[in-house]
Amino acid sequence: MADAIAAARHAPIAPIDGGITAPTGFRSAGVHCGIKANPDALDLAVLAVDTFASMAAVFTTNLAQAAPVLVSKRHLDVNQGVGCAIVVNSGCANACTGELGLAHARRMAEEVARALGCQPEQVLVASTGVIGVGLNMERVAAGIHDACSSLAHGNGGLTARAIMTTDPFPKEHAVRVTTARGAFCVGGTAKGSGMIEPNMATMLGFLSTDAQVTPAMLRRALVESARDTFNAITVDGECSTNDCVVAMASGTSGVVIDDELYPALLDGLLAVSRPLALGIVRGGEGATKVIGVTVHDARTAEDARQVARTIANSPLVKTAVHGADPNWGRIVAAVGRSGVALDIDQVTVRIGGILLFDHGLPRDEAASSAVEVLKRDTIDIAVSLGAGDASATIWGCDLSAEYVRINGEYRT
Amino acid sequence: MADAIAAARHAPIAPIDGGITAPTGFRSAGVHCGIKANPDALDLAVLAVDTFASMAAVFTTNLAQAAPVLVSKRHLDVNQGVGCAIVVNSGCANACTGELGLAHARRMAEEVARALGCQPEQVLVASTGVIGVGLNMERVAAGIHDACSSLAHGNGGLTARAIMTTDPFPKEHAVRVTTARGAFCVGGTAKGSGMIEPNMATMLGFLSTDAQVTPAMLRRALVESARDTFNAITVDGECSTNDCVVAMASGTSGVVIDDELYPALLDGLLAVSRPLALGIVRGGEGATKVIGVTVHDARTAEDARQVARTIANSPLVKTAVHGADPNWGRIVAAVGRSGVALDIDQVTVRIGGILLFDHGLPRDEAASSAVEVLKRDTIDIAVSLGAGDASATIWGCDLSAEYVRINGEYRT
Repeated sequence: MADAIAAARHAPIAPIDGGITAPTGFRSAGVHCGIKANPDALDLAVLAVDTFASMAAVFTTNLAQAAPVLVSKRHLDVNQGVGCAIVVNSGCANACTGELGLAHARRMAEEVARALGCQPEQVLVASTGVIGVGLNMERVAAGIHDACSSLAHGNGGLTARAIMTTDPFPKEHAVRVTTARGAFCVGGTAKGSGMIEPNMATMLGFLSTDAQVTPAMLRRALVESARDTFNAITVDGECSTNDCVVAMASGTSGVVIDDELYPALLDGLLAVSRPLALGIVRGGEGATKVIGVTVHDARTAEDARQVARTIANSPLVKTAVHGADPNWGRIVAAVGRSGVALDIDQVTVRIGGILLFDHGLPRDEAASSAVEVLKRDTIDIAVSLGAGDASATIWGCDLSAEYVRINGEYRT
Repeated sequence: MADAIAAARHAPIAPIDGGITAPTGFRSAGVHCGIKANPDALDLAVLAVDTFASMAAVFTTNLAQAAPVLVSKRHLDVNQGVGCAIVVNSGCANACTGELGLAHARRMAEEVARALGCQPEQVLVASTGVIGVGLNMERVAAGIHDACSSLAHGNGGLTARAIMTTDPFPKEHAVRVTTARGAFCVGGTAKGSGMIEPNMATMLGFLSTDAQVTPAMLRRALVESARDTFNAITVDGECSTNDCVVAMASGTSGVVIDDELYPALLDGLLAVSRPLALGIVRGGEGATKVIGVTVHDARTAEDARQVARTIANSPLVKTAVHGADPNWGRIVAAVGRSGVALDIDQVTVRIGGILLFDHGLPRDEAASSAVEVLKRDTIDIAVSLGAGDASATIWGCDLSAEYVRINGEYRT
């Protein structure tokens, strides 16, 4: 996994404080408006750019898309990737809520636009929480008013807390990227799985940068960085109605991203997205261990991803890791049913570097040393397909009785 | 589910005793040969036909195929669907065991052939148990000798027990099918998920009939009946290295199956396979409830199966059913991510007949009455896609903390 985290870097990158508001040109807020019952729990956030920002987003591929997803997609179409703010609520997903839900999501953008003096279509909307329940718009409108009055450059931490549901810890990260033409910053925050009312494992991610970049190039960098970070994690193989990752670029650093500096921007996005994505896995419902599954020597990267994802989502592999059982047979079986054409006699399987299955033959005598490796809180599973030179890593977590408890409790 | 179980019947069908040896022309045995440590646990079975039988089989689609699967496929090719016996051991899967494993599987067929006076290629082999461990061939050969000496018409129950691993109960069923041209019988036994050393959820099924049917027609009926029974169940979405279902027809009833009687044969196979398949689900690792997911009004039966399978394999749906949580939002989200093209505004979701999601809109007020339905031990989930007139049913089970405990314990 260390290899996977420390990808090739094209520019010096240093971690900095400040999260989503670390880059210049951004202000944010996090308030309690009453969607959550607990008065100490923040449940509404606004992230605003001082002038205008390039915007790009990737959304859930689920065909059951929540109202805020539908509205944000439409707004990105209309504003052609130039916007001024994102508004996020937690505690209610505003999904499966029909026309009224769409009206509520549009109203959220309108309230922000009115407070900030921009167009509603320049505001994106995100929600996370229970499905099938409508928003209390009176409370949400009052919360938006509060939040827009309290926007500040130092509020990244409040924003990270306001988008949480039952995430066990807030997730934020920021870096400074130094290039030959000056430095720019990238910040971000994300929320993962776990709800007060157990429901969907909704994933939201927000990234900010003060690099100056066109919407099209920002979108290219977001898609490319999300592929190996936010889209390379799995808690339970579920893809929610509300998932989205949004990137905004204020341009206030004056560093212009062209083809030459594109790799530096990509590195910056990766450097922020990776710890956020890993944080989502580590904070996954009931998770006690992070599992990094890397598939090497595949014919294509897509093949490698598909095999890695099948292993990372296998309940038998997840429970074996949970119990520190070096049960490599389950990994081989997952490889075999992944749908990727391969020759099992060319396959090797390593857990924590220990070879347990070698070109179709067991190396079961090494199993006892693998038990010790499996007691760590981060586990590497490495599979070679012996079919080519492509590779990919997927991060998952173990499956515990706590996952069942969290998701099996009565909602009503 | 009741609808799904009571499919259209083309001939009067009556349940009878005797399991796999209920049809005439079959003898079987179940013995303890020492693969399992417990001396009271049977671990080797032989099913033999008095003369020769038409044989057909369906095997796992996993590319990591156990030695007995590879050998049985080869034997079916060579014998062109005419054989005399099946030998099965439990406690060791003989999977991922390389050339030695293949030699052992071939030897098992040879020992049976020698005892029965037929060709090794007329014997099929099946194994279930731990992966990556070799068979003790001395014990197995002695067990085969014992079993072949004790073959009897009334031993169906012993055979059903000898193929179990940690299945909580043996699974066998038999029926008499009465046609205008006389009666024939169909019997069967199966084993499901759960191992003494937790490993793969291996599914084995064996069917016998005294109908007279060509290997080609038997194969057609087996594939067709397995599609809606053994291939329509899921415990945890895992497909093992050893799964197989074999059908044998002795012909001793004298009832010749031609195109006219084909539906009667199919009904007989379905009538035996359905309770066996449901038994596998009910006895699934940690399962406390059977979930029947029926998807209606799909464009194609394949679409319906894919949506139903996505719902039945969703850990969030399985945990919600476990906790009697009428969380229809998770069902809608599973429908949306199933990969089938559909319009979510045409979708309806019912749990136990109670409408909870109606053409894209929540009917959450009915959720409290659904809680009572969800406390039963068999739960119907019905989804209409509003896109066509095809339908399919998949049977699954809930996900409990017990599943995690069974599969997370140290193997070493």
